Amino acid sequence: MKKLRVGILGATGTVGQGMIQLLERHPWFEVSTVAASDNSAGKNYAQATRWGLETPIPEPVARMTVQPCQPGLDCDFVLSGLPSSVAEETELQMAKAGLAVVTNAGSHRMKADVPLVIPEINPDHLDALDLQKKRIGSRGFIVTNPNCSAIGLVFPIAALDRKFKLEAVHVVTMQALSGAGYPGVASLDIIDNVLPAIDMGGEDRKIETESLKILGRWRDNQFVNAPIRMSAMTHRVNVRDGHLEAVSVKLGTKASREQVEAAIRDFTSPIDELALPSAPKPVMILESHVQRPQPRLDRDRGQGMAIVVGPVSACGVLDYKFRVLSHNTIRGAAGAAILNAELMYRKSLIG
Amino acid sequence: MKKLRVGILGATGTVGQGMIQLLERHPWFEVSTVAASDNSAGKNYAQATRWGLETPIPEPVARMTVQPCQPGLDCDFVLSGLPSSVAEETELQMAKAGLAVVTNAGSHRMKADVPLVIPEINPDHLDALDLQKKRIGSRGFIVTNPNCSAIGLVFPIAALDRKFKLEAVHVVTMQALSGAGYPGVASLDIIDNVLPAIDMGGEDRKIETESLKILGRWRDNQFVNAPIRMSAMTHRVNVRDGHLEAVSVKLGTKASREQVEAAIRDFTSPIDELALPSAPKPVMILESHVQRPQPRLDRDRGQGMAIVVGPVSACGVLDYKFRVLSHNTIRGAAGAAILNAELMYRKSLIG
Amino acid sequence: MKKLRVGILGATGTVGQGMIQLLERHPWFEVSTVAASDNSAGKNYAQATRWGLETPIPEPVARMTVQPCQPGLDCDFVLSGLPSSVAEETELQMAKAGLAVVTNAGSHRMKADVPLVIPEINPDHLDALDLQKKRIGSRGFIVTNPNCSAIGLVFPIAALDRKFKLEAVHVVTMQALSGAGYPGVASLDIIDNVLPAIDMGGEDRKIETESLKILGRWRDNQFVNAPIRMSAMTHRVNVRDGHLEAVSVKLGTKASREQVEAAIRDFTSPIDELALPSAPKPVMILESHVQRPQPRLDRDRGQGMAIVVGPVSACGVLDYKFRVLSHNTIRGAAGAAILNAELMYRKSLIG
Amino acid sequence: MKKLRVGILGATGTVGQGMIQLLERHPWFEVSTVAASDNSAGKNYAQATRWGLETPIPEPVARMTVQPCQPGLDCDFVLSGLPSSVAEETELQMAKAGLAVVTNAGSHRMKADVPLVIPEINPDHLDALDLQKKRIGSRGFIVTNPNCSAIGLVFPIAALDRKFKLEAVHVVTMQALSGAGYPGVASLDIIDNVLPAIDMGGEDRKIETESLKILGRWRDNQFVNAPIRMSAMTHRVNVRDGHLEAVSVKLGTKASREQVEAAIRDFTSPIDELALPSAPKPVMILESHVQRPQPRLDRDRGQGMAIVVGPVSACGVLDYKFRVLSHNTIRGAAGAAILNAELMYRKSLIG
Repeated sequence: MKKLRVGILGATGTVGQGMIQLLERHPWFEVSTVAASDNSAGKNYAQATRWGLETPIPEPVARMTVQPCQPGLDCDFVLSGLPSSVAEETELQMAKAGLAVVTNAGSHRMKADVPLVIPEINPDHLDALDLQKKRIGSRGFIVTNPNCSAIGLVFPIAALDRKFKLEAVHVVTMQALSGAGYPGVASLDIIDNVLPAIDMGGEDRKIETESLKILGRWRDNQFVNAPIRMSAMTHRVNVRDGHLEAVSVKLGTKASREQVEAAIRDFTSPIDELALPSAPKPVMILESHVQRPQPRLDRDRGQGMAIVVGPVSACGVLDYKFRVLSHNTIRGAAGAAILNAELMYRKSLIG
Repeated sequence: MKKLRVGILGATGTVGQGMIQLLERHPWFEVSTVAASDNSAGKNYAQATRWGLETPIPEPVARMTVQPCQPGLDCDFVLSGLPSSVAEETELQMAKAGLAVVTNAGSHRMKADVPLVIPEINPDHLDALDLQKKRIGSRGFIVTNPNCSAIGLVFPIAALDRKFKLEAVHVVTMQALSGAGYPGVASLDIIDNVLPAIDMGGEDRKIETESLKILGRWRDNQFVNAPIRMSAMTHRVNVRDGHLEAVSVKLGTKASREQVEAAIRDFTSPIDELALPSAPKPVMILESHVQRPQPRLDRDRGQGMAIVVGPVSACGVLDYKFRVLSHNTIRGAAGAAILNAELMYRKSLIG
Repeated sequence: MKKLRVGILGATGTVGQGMIQLLERHPWFEVSTVAASDNSAGKNYAQATRWGLETPIPEPVARMTVQPCQPGLDCDFVLSGLPSSVAEETELQMAKAGLAVVTNAGSHRMKADVPLVIPEINPDHLDALDLQKKRIGSRGFIVTNPNCSAIGLVFPIAALDRKFKLEAVHVVTMQALSGAGYPGVASLDIIDNVLPAIDMGGEDRKIETESLKILGRWRDNQFVNAPIRMSAMTHRVNVRDGHLEAVSVKLGTKASREQVEAAIRDFTSPIDELALPSAPKPVMILESHVQRPQPRLDRDRGQGMAIVVGPVSACGVLDYKFRVLSHNTIRGAAGAAILNAELMYRKSLIG
Repeated sequence: MKKLRVGILGATGTVGQGMIQLLERHPWFEVSTVAASDNSAGKNYAQATRWGLETPIPEPVARMTVQPCQPGLDCDFVLSGLPSSVAEETELQMAKAGLAVVTNAGSHRMKADVPLVIPEINPDHLDALDLQKKRIGSRGFIVTNPNCSAIGLVFPIAALDRKFKLEAVHVVTMQALSGAGYPGVASLDIIDNVLPAIDMGGEDRKIETESLKILGRWRDNQFVNAPIRMSAMTHRVNVRDGHLEAVSVKLGTKASREQVEAAIRDFTSPIDELALPSAPKPVMILESHVQRPQPRLDRDRGQGMAIVVGPVSACGVLDYKFRVLSHNTIRGAAGAAILNAELMYRKSLIG
């Protein structure tokens, strides 16, 4: 089989690096071109990049010349790890030029006709692309994945909403340093410390709004949010990778603790039969030990693509509470975009 | 003025060390004797102790001979930093022998006639001592202070309950290493990690039950819990000192965000006029920056005795949310016990 | 091929766990029995063990019943991860009972007829076993591997001694937390800190004495130390795995910086042709970037069995200086013992 | 007494902040004006500054308007915490305009007529100012203090050189994060890691060259370096404040371990009788415990101005070895400049 040729936007950044690493031995896709800011364009990729991963730069990519982020890239579709500041305009240009853009950037996530997709949760949101293409006036389009904190949360609450109709979700996060990119958090700020209100509280709002869009529906040519009350409080902690979240939920219908745990444990996904290469099996793991999940012990499960949920217990204020952990740079960024591309390939939206 | 002479139980442990340090220049109290386990008894205090504080051992104490924890200590009252495993029986013996025991240990906190006191919140709970003395059959008695996580939380919720009748309190903690004592948490467990469910969840329950007792009332010879729904989820993070807590509350009466902040900012305590030496002024500080409080920046405010609360914002699930920080080994342990002793001295319960 | 059956002594400890993990898919060896202290004996391995590795317990081992550390174990040879306090006597008993004991413990390392072996450096030291067997009066015997700090250091200095006759070696270590075992270093001791003089300076002496034995020769039925002046200063730093060492050397013959780097880069080992399964290729990697090696980036190279050396530069006091890094729990403990066993198997000393 | 009025250059940076904090209650000096880059000039100091210290901004300074770093500042002399990139030109302009400049910046340290001064070690180097003033053609001049790593090292080696004529000094550093300024080291680089070769090795050279200038002499209108062989290897470790250094020395004359310790313990300084407000007594503390000094436990001794040396032991390669610790932002930066200004005031060079 001939592999699809992928262009990486923002290839020298941390998300771009993650995409390149995860695609190193991908069965369907291969990196054909790397693009970055004008500072890097024209340089050899290995020289232009401050590679921060323990594994070496894949050989063919190391030798590529970095291209500017402009239409005309030599590829079948693009994966974007651009920073939000430049993503909005650049990605739109790419889409207008006819390319499928699968992006981790936040700029387009909440747009009225842009799918915000987690393949295991809301693959049908891709139906919005018909409308989007008309707006853009191109066969190109943009598909987004959620914020790295929203993505872990959405799995257990989707499972519970499906069974018990959620009324309210309260989440407090303890997020890893790598979520802030590189150089990101200054070591002097985090040593012997916790930093509250990530992005001055902007992160709280992303979790609240993105989760409701993902759990909502696309119908009559618009996204309808899930009717759930949400509250998020975010914190940065001294952990390299892995976002831990403490979640309390109120159910719309009565359920026992055992039923709630069963809903999480037995979660099945509409894409199970698609055999996407990056989809972990199982996608959600229910741990029984009260002191799990922990970032260091659980972040790499399912090659960093699994969601690990701790035991469920009664909440004295809402109904039930539990913890959820996901790897923020794999499941929460680079891997999320790649899994979206895999879904789109199976649905013949790219390739 | 002649100082009251204090015996320290568990003097070689971390809480005992903190008590000795805080009493070094105390205007009313002085350490007259130090007592610890049989392993240490008979040794010179400096030799028996693995002193872990940056300041040196106060000279007179360094030269004392450690006594066994038995009645007959040479002192006017005792402060106890004993571990819970031995505190229950030892403290009861001391009380039966006629001594006032002011303890940080958890063993007696929830007993039906034992005051669990924060001077600024519920000084009237000391009224329970009459009943307790009868039970014990002695003029000696036991007074306790709360768990180090409960103590920070109780301040803002007491302020809000007083004004708006709280219906529910949801708290997620990020607690410092020193809360686990020494040697406590293994470095291999906490590096690049967060540990959920402190004490296998026992810490969650302490916060829930102790807070309700403190906010409740002593009447008709019994403690009546405050009628508030409580939910706590605890975590250990890689911070030396300072417990940070993310709190959401539901009010019984309507209030604006400004009114809620005012209730915290304007909190006054029934002991303000007592001029207790360890009582900070103000006892509760409302910060306006969304990224405060932070453990390293705020734990030492008011000599570690102040409670620092962050800005209040609307909660999408309950009514309002905010963060609270307190120094767990000072306000949450050694300083809490000393402040209780100061209150008791003013009320002529000791001395 | 039928695999040799291995008994693990100290199977529930951190070194024992590492051995079990590394043997999970070993081509020559398989764990047939696990033994530990009387506390654990009789229990199921999974229940007796506080497993601290990110990967799960290998299935067959998880179900084994822990045996007491006594002769009569069902195995062809034993790997020992016993703590030094009990290793000396227990391992001698095993050897007397006819078993080959390959141990990471320090108790026997400096004995006059006990080989202290790194396969790539001094495989011929196994010749001492003839004498040892006579002393013990058994076909069983004991083979040891070095302290986790000595092992990384010995590689570059062996390469340089071979070419330029070393006169002096000065080393300052920055060692990882896992070197102290579990629970090991208290988090309160290491947060925002460095701890000098590991083991009260005992670690310094181990590095000095063990290195000289390894670099020395077995002749005329005794070990003759290498005639090199040694000085070691040790420190514990807040790193999970990977010992970093800053080394300065004085050469016996003149050499340029390039020649010194070449001696390290071109190091070849007498066991290269043996194709031992755990031997990395290359065993020693010379990095050219001045800010390498770093613990997190380089500890896992060669599956944790490679030694990574930084660029060589002139030393203003001795002749040259460089840094060396090795993974202390793999190359420096569990992997070291297994590699020794592989060498012994190839030399028909076991099996 | 009327206080001298001090202008702070680079007032919004970390060194400038430290100077402002240390001068808050200074008996001789008071901050009269704050200057910084054009970005900050014109703003209120509190608004222009990302204050990173646990104590609040001193009130009068908080309200000052930040000035541009140009001649004409309203002050009697200036303290400079400018970054090296701009210090060279700016400080020279200030001196030419007639101001005494006491700077922590590295730009002028190694100039042929610029004193590099530690008051307790080489106060006589100020004699070079006569020549410097002629060159500059002004009554203004520049005085520098050393790099934060050199400063701790110089104390014990000055004491030993004075008594035993040092031949060689070998030092390996483990330096704190704050030495890199703010934002400085990225948290992703240092978590679970050590970073070798600070400033790509530039820090090694600063230690070597600055130490020799300080220990050298000013005679015949030039600085003559001390004739000592030096070797430095630097590392960044995950510690907030406090540089730890492992030192080995070769003496020119024979001495016992006890004599070496006595030389350190009995060190007296030519400025002892000057009673400088920031000079600690004693300036150098010899610790007897083999596991001291430690950054967290010892950095604040003498209000962060004392040098703490560990016990001396025999070195197998050179003669003796020991460790030294100093607070890098106090004794190694802001406090060093202030102490220099105090010396200059006593010598009537300012005021």
